Amino acid sequence: MKNIIPPVKGTRDFYPEQMAIRTWLYEAVRAVSESFGYQEWEAPLLETLDLYAAKSGEELVKEQSYVFTDRGGDMITLRPELTPSLARLVAQRQNELSFPLRWWSWGPFWRYERPQRGRTREFLQWNVDMIGVDSPEADAEVVTVLASLFQKVGLTPREVLILVNNRRLTDAQLEMIGIPKERRPAVMTWIDRRDKLTVDAWETYGREVGLSDEQIAKTKTMLADQDLWKQSEELVQFFKAIEALGLAQYIRFDPSIMRGLAYYTGTVFEAWEVGGDIKRSILGGGRYDNLLSDVGGSPLSAVGFAMGDVVMGLLMEKYGLAPKELKASPALVLVTVFDKERILDSMRLAADLRREGLNVICYPESAKLQKQFKFADRMGMQVALVIGPDEAAAGKITIKNLVDGSQFTLERAGVVDAIKKILAAQ
Amino acid sequence: MKNIIPPVKGTRDFYPEQMAIRTWLYEAVRAVSESFGYQEWEAPLLETLDLYAAKSGEELVKEQSYVFTDRGGDMITLRPELTPSLARLVAQRQNELSFPLRWWSWGPFWRYERPQRGRTREFLQWNVDMIGVDSPEADAEVVTVLASLFQKVGLTPREVLILVNNRRLTDAQLEMIGIPKERRPAVMTWIDRRDKLTVDAWETYGREVGLSDEQIAKTKTMLADQDLWKQSEELVQFFKAIEALGLAQYIRFDPSIMRGLAYYTGTVFEAWEVGGDIKRSILGGGRYDNLLSDVGGSPLSAVGFAMGDVVMGLLMEKYGLAPKELKASPALVLVTVFDKERILDSMRLAADLRREGLNVICYPESAKLQKQFKFADRMGMQVALVIGPDEAAAGKITIKNLVDGSQFTLERAGVVDAIKKILAAQ
Repeated sequence: MKNIIPPVKGTRDFYPEQMAIRTWLYEAVRAVSESFGYQEWEAPLLETLDLYAAKSGEELVKEQSYVFTDRGGDMITLRPELTPSLARLVAQRQNELSFPLRWWSWGPFWRYERPQRGRTREFLQWNVDMIGVDSPEADAEVVTVLASLFQKVGLTPREVLILVNNRRLTDAQLEMIGIPKERRPAVMTWIDRRDKLTVDAWETYGREVGLSDEQIAKTKTMLADQDLWKQSEELVQFFKAIEALGLAQYIRFDPSIMRGLAYYTGTVFEAWEVGGDIKRSILGGGRYDNLLSDVGGSPLSAVGFAMGDVVMGLLMEKYGLAPKELKASPALVLVTVFDKERILDSMRLAADLRREGLNVICYPESAKLQKQFKFADRMGMQVALVIGPDEAAAGKITIKNLVDGSQFTLERAGVVDAIKKILAAQ
Repeated sequence: MKNIIPPVKGTRDFYPEQMAIRTWLYEAVRAVSESFGYQEWEAPLLETLDLYAAKSGEELVKEQSYVFTDRGGDMITLRPELTPSLARLVAQRQNELSFPLRWWSWGPFWRYERPQRGRTREFLQWNVDMIGVDSPEADAEVVTVLASLFQKVGLTPREVLILVNNRRLTDAQLEMIGIPKERRPAVMTWIDRRDKLTVDAWETYGREVGLSDEQIAKTKTMLADQDLWKQSEELVQFFKAIEALGLAQYIRFDPSIMRGLAYYTGTVFEAWEVGGDIKRSILGGGRYDNLLSDVGGSPLSAVGFAMGDVVMGLLMEKYGLAPKELKASPALVLVTVFDKERILDSMRLAADLRREGLNVICYPESAKLQKQFKFADRMGMQVALVIGPDEAAAGKITIKNLVDGSQFTLERAGVVDAIKKILAAQ
């Protein structure tokens, strides 16, 4: 075989089998988003570098973004995240939109990272944001949208949990421990690294960011305190709202959740597999207050999250979530072509059946019937129709049930009902 | 107001209102594609430059593509068309796939061109291809898929037509006119330019590509011959199949259709608005035989088309095709929040209603009822629910019909039916 031109590293080909799973997830995402009244929107996939320079993390912009100069000399970025675009769109129409906005989106993003299990360079992301209201109830709704998606695709709280913290609570605690304001971001980064380092390495790192042994010990106590949320009026209200929304079993307080992105200001959350082998967060989100003003709008509080499809894909595969029937052809009915002379009869029948609401493939040339049945079998089809010379002369059709192998011949008028009966039985 | 960071030239923002129309078109595309048994697939949005160098037109690769070097030094292209990726995917699994393949796709593409009415730099495209069978009936099916989309979205043959020709027919005619083989591609390009030039300029151009006045006259006779298709056995069979498939009213023979792309070999077609002001083809397609071998696979015949969403968008707007109700919120039911004390009751009710299958927004904070009703009105919602102190004490709910302004109070148990009745009446 000749060498086939290879794909770009870190991208994925979606053959129909993979695409069906992707579409199934998109439809679940749509159903859940819309059940809470969120409206779908989409930004351009190309944005200017300036848009991200404002607030996205330095690592994201300087090391992980695809940036290039176009033929006209403009600096273009393949979007690495959606929130700056969201801020731009809202700022552009700030006086016309009906707040609170509930917006969701599903589309492609790019980050130049080393591809590995659970990470590609081109990926899809579900974004959910509520904009223009600052309340713990709004935070709780957004987290519940996420929990509803887990429930919808068949993930239980035994498999995934959403871990919630609040930046203001952490900040107040760090103040009590005696860490000055300017050093707190570095300390939060240090806390965020805890799971990735050995105990010794982590404590050494803590001393490097200027903490005393006593402060390290107090921080460890804080991180072990599962009741710490009771000291945050915001989180108390948040968890009451979570209870009211009915999916509290998916949601836990965790004082060690920090989130990397610089723009979060209040409640923050991440979702993780419980005790499994997928050591990568499924998603993250939180409340952010300053993003609109960073792109040129007036300040407006917002809460949202972004879930990539790659780690979610690992979970779907591991727990066998996608239904088996996704592998079959979207058309379960094949009209065969008996011979060259009867191809138009077959095409006409197929067109009639489509008008009656069925999805139908007509074999596109004359070929041995055995070959056509084999095609139907490989495509997971359930019904094959034959119009041979006998059927044509009598105005009848032969229907073959491909699931149980039975077949019978009947008048044209009864064909649609007979097909529907076979399809309904599966 | 501060300066808002602008979008990239030639890209589009999809606010919920535009996104709803885009999704409506995508759903029509899906329904039509699946009714013929086509399977959805998708390629990466980034491909190597090599993939296009093989066969895409020179103008497309050298002048219109977004090409850049990534952080690892690879030459990356934002895909300007899908067919080379299709050839790559099929070549990769040529021995495993069940032919004939019927594949469709819907996704973003980029071309660096001057943005104007009907043209953006970032656009969406619907691709439909049948691969592995070479028959006029297959060509007819693919053209009918397209006609079915026009019918589905509400475009009639008074508004749009699909014009069909065959490259082999044109080639045979040019041979009869005495044009040597090596000069025929240039002559086809000349024919393709006819509508864009004055008669004089076009004839001068014809002499420049080496035609005698007699050959120009004979070509003009050929281009006026509406019965020319009868000389092509392929087109005779094609039009019989088109009749059998039932949408012949959308499809006409037109001997002047050439198609620009270098890879077409047989039947070619374009769709155009009829006598309107949109002077840009809605789409193009045809049969191509060599693309798989160009990317490293074994030769395989295929037929397909690509329809961009921008010209289609002009038609949809001009003829008012998208349904009016697309502008409303996906949730037509608002649960209001009477006051701070009752917010959890409202959230609980909203969660219950969602579990019963309704799309429901709960107002995310306490606010004046008037403000909440105004929000519902601006979002095009139809029902608002109120739980005030009286309702809470009596275990009842007040339902406000936002369409006719009526309202009534009833037991919790009757709420879902009452809501469904109001929604069904619209």
